[in-house]
Amino acid sequence: MGSTSARRLNINNINPHVKAAKYAVRGELAVKSEEYRAYLQGGVTDLPFSKVISANIGNPQQLDQKPITFFRQVLSLLENPALLKHEDVLVNQLDYKPDVIERAKRLLKQVGSVGAYSASNGVPAIRQSIADFLERRDGFPAKQSDIYLSAGASSGVNTLLHIICADAKSGILVPIPQYPLYTASLSVLDATCVPYLLDESKNWGTDLDIIKESHAKATAEGVDVRAIVIINPGNPTGASLSAEDIRSVIDFAREERLVIIADEVYQTNVFVGEFISFKRMLREMQQEKPGVYDSIELASLHSVSKGMVGECGHRGGYFELVGFDPEVQAEIYKFVSIMLCAPVIGQCLVDLMVNPPRPGDASYELYQQEYNAIFNGLRERATALHKAFEQMEGVECGAPQGSMYLFPTIQLPPKAAEAAAAEGRTPDEFYCMRLLEATGVCVVPGSGFGQKDGSLHFRTTFLAPGTEWVGSIVKFHREFMDKYR
Amino acid sequence: MGSTSARRLNINNINPHVKAAKYAVRGELAVKSEEYRAYLQGGVTDLPFSKVISANIGNPQQLDQKPITFFRQVLSLLENPALLKHEDVLVNQLDYKPDVIERAKRLLKQVGSVGAYSASNGVPAIRQSIADFLERRDGFPAKQSDIYLSAGASSGVNTLLHIICADAKSGILVPIPQYPLYTASLSVLDATCVPYLLDESKNWGTDLDIIKESHAKATAEGVDVRAIVIINPGNPTGASLSAEDIRSVIDFAREERLVIIADEVYQTNVFVGEFISFKRMLREMQQEKPGVYDSIELASLHSVSKGMVGECGHRGGYFELVGFDPEVQAEIYKFVSIMLCAPVIGQCLVDLMVNPPRPGDASYELYQQEYNAIFNGLRERATALHKAFEQMEGVECGAPQGSMYLFPTIQLPPKAAEAAAAEGRTPDEFYCMRLLEATGVCVVPGSGFGQKDGSLHFRTTFLAPGTEWVGSIVKFHREFMDKYR
Repeated sequence: MGSTSARRLNINNINPHVKAAKYAVRGELAVKSEEYRAYLQGGVTDLPFSKVISANIGNPQQLDQKPITFFRQVLSLLENPALLKHEDVLVNQLDYKPDVIERAKRLLKQVGSVGAYSASNGVPAIRQSIADFLERRDGFPAKQSDIYLSAGASSGVNTLLHIICADAKSGILVPIPQYPLYTASLSVLDATCVPYLLDESKNWGTDLDIIKESHAKATAEGVDVRAIVIINPGNPTGASLSAEDIRSVIDFAREERLVIIADEVYQTNVFVGEFISFKRMLREMQQEKPGVYDSIELASLHSVSKGMVGECGHRGGYFELVGFDPEVQAEIYKFVSIMLCAPVIGQCLVDLMVNPPRPGDASYELYQQEYNAIFNGLRERATALHKAFEQMEGVECGAPQGSMYLFPTIQLPPKAAEAAAAEGRTPDEFYCMRLLEATGVCVVPGSGFGQKDGSLHFRTTFLAPGTEWVGSIVKFHREFMDKYR
Repeated sequence: MGSTSARRLNINNINPHVKAAKYAVRGELAVKSEEYRAYLQGGVTDLPFSKVISANIGNPQQLDQKPITFFRQVLSLLENPALLKHEDVLVNQLDYKPDVIERAKRLLKQVGSVGAYSASNGVPAIRQSIADFLERRDGFPAKQSDIYLSAGASSGVNTLLHIICADAKSGILVPIPQYPLYTASLSVLDATCVPYLLDESKNWGTDLDIIKESHAKATAEGVDVRAIVIINPGNPTGASLSAEDIRSVIDFAREERLVIIADEVYQTNVFVGEFISFKRMLREMQQEKPGVYDSIELASLHSVSKGMVGECGHRGGYFELVGFDPEVQAEIYKFVSIMLCAPVIGQCLVDLMVNPPRPGDASYELYQQEYNAIFNGLRERATALHKAFEQMEGVECGAPQGSMYLFPTIQLPPKAAEAAAAEGRTPDEFYCMRLLEATGVCVVPGSGFGQKDGSLHFRTTFLAPGTEWVGSIVKFHREFMDKYR
């Protein structure tokens, strides 16, 4: 008592579950890349590159992606409704179309001020707008009372895991590789991650036998497995699940009584195949075999961060619950209440995303043009990057399928593994660190997402414009292989 | 296995710590008030009131408060930078002053797109802007690397409690009455709330003897008390702490090696006395007695939600750390990374709040006029409401001091307590429920914040315009007292 010799908090007495959490997407490599960026901005010129390329995170507007005009025009009016007193100026001198003005007026009427708290689960009219979108998308009804606006999908996942996990024995099946939000959140919550490997040889699809094996093993160890996470389209893999894979997951969830958490934030980033929502497939299966799938609980998430919207800085998202107990939903409502509500301007952006201009609307043509240009640009960059990987020794990468990422396998020489071990790093971390130091390109080692033992990968976005950075990766790789051969 | 007879999740098997959390500010009364609002909007006319008054939550712009023009003009340009191509139109036809345009350009240069993720702890230039503000406010330096942007202060509190609490034995001293964010978050975290009563007879100031007693009792019970929360100016009490109270808390924190969490979100809502920040007082004490207070760890929080800004829907806030271990700060950085970053437009609003127009700037006059009008309006409403409470039988309420609330004591007749018990409610809950049903005015019972055993209170904001609703409370109270006398 009375001692002031040391601080109260130190690395050894803070929350051990926070300490144990890992989040490589913004880890050591990302921090170092920001240091390089600051050096370069400060005029440092002795680095072997002149620009940092943040290919570590799906952050479209940090790179080349321009916001969609319709969205931002509406948001500008929501932030400053006084502009609506000058409709003629907006239309005749500032390129605001009448549907922009109409939409802003409607949202202001529904929301009130974007500076006011909304209902904890979000503005009712925006929840209805999402329900209408889901009905159009899936062909099955959706209810606004089952929809919860969130600060990006991450906050929605945090809410769901907080409710589902009751104690350290509560287990959640998580795909490997995965977006590390899941493992990090489970670590903070002190619940159990039950990993299941995706099948790289089948375009990173789900393999039911592997899922069953993981589930059985965890159950035998006393884990109370409660839910299965599916990321579709995949992150970091980019894969779109087939209808068969989705069906088999739903069947398995029914057999084992698992809540399905469907992370569907990349639903519009699909180059190959077709996005099928878990909700639609579940409803079809319920129609085919009445009664059999009635007790399935599904939570599906979406966000304004990805797709052609790419507005991650606005922290907008939502999740829909299907088949949840009303008493459980009341607890979810209370939980989200503690943080009051999702950012209201982000909620409005969700409304715009799910209800964009339609054929005949004054803004439609420009919207469609911008949307398609982003979509095609992403596909072209993905293809160019993939071609580069095909030329690289020891690198294998499936054709780009979707999301914003490629996740190549790399085979490194034994000497590289030895050099990595000498630094206390895994070989993929070692490779990515050298890549950053040599080229300014920041990617994330596969170990940040999880990978099959003995395999090595890295994840890179294909958002960055130009081809120079791709060339610098190819050159680095050749020199790296030569050095450690 | 294989049974589909019931859902996986029910009220009895979800996270018990979420279930145990209480958050009355948005609880049963608030939900019921929203139902009434929906009825009224739907044309229902058989209620005894024609309007719902949400006096349960500090939500200024839901009621009468208009956003400050300078803030919203800048935000509109950040959302739609294309407007900056038409400076002449903005200035000559839309009332945008040159300093609005200049500020938007500067922020866009610093932030990039508001649709992009920022650094996890916030945009570096905005952190610097906050550090400069703190230096002006306190007269002592502040460092941008010690500042963390958050989604409102609530999210900052959530982060701090997550780091500080290591297990169920970790205890945090929390004032009673308190804003229930603290008890709710500690409940979800399964850590221990160590309550200490504020002294109603001394304008809800801190009483060191009471704090010591609470600390000693908890410590004797095996609780590892790690931090003390101070809400200054108070919520729900409105009180401003005196310099002596602040000094004694800092001394106590030193003696018992407690982290100080200073919730200072109402720092500009002060009618009586002067706001003194914990940071300033700590630095002064460190100057007075060199070496003695060096190991103090202080976290202080602020937000755009309250004050004359009132932009709670934007979810902007920050906290500053003083004296924290760098390794602990690295864990805080990692923790906030998992949710990526605070909403970027909300971060920009923090920048505007801490760096508003200054004398000589083109927007200064209007800004000052709007700011003062809000300040004076709040004081007038507080005074009017206080006058009404003075007339009410069995109601006692100190003169309004600050924040956005009054927190009167009420003495209810025994028959009211019996009727409440018959409904399974506390007497204050019962009173507030009847008030809502009779008048449409939604307030929060004192039990939602904690209160001394045997005492009853309710909290009401003084944000709602007009005097009609105040009159309806007076009338209701008279009838209630007559009924249960």
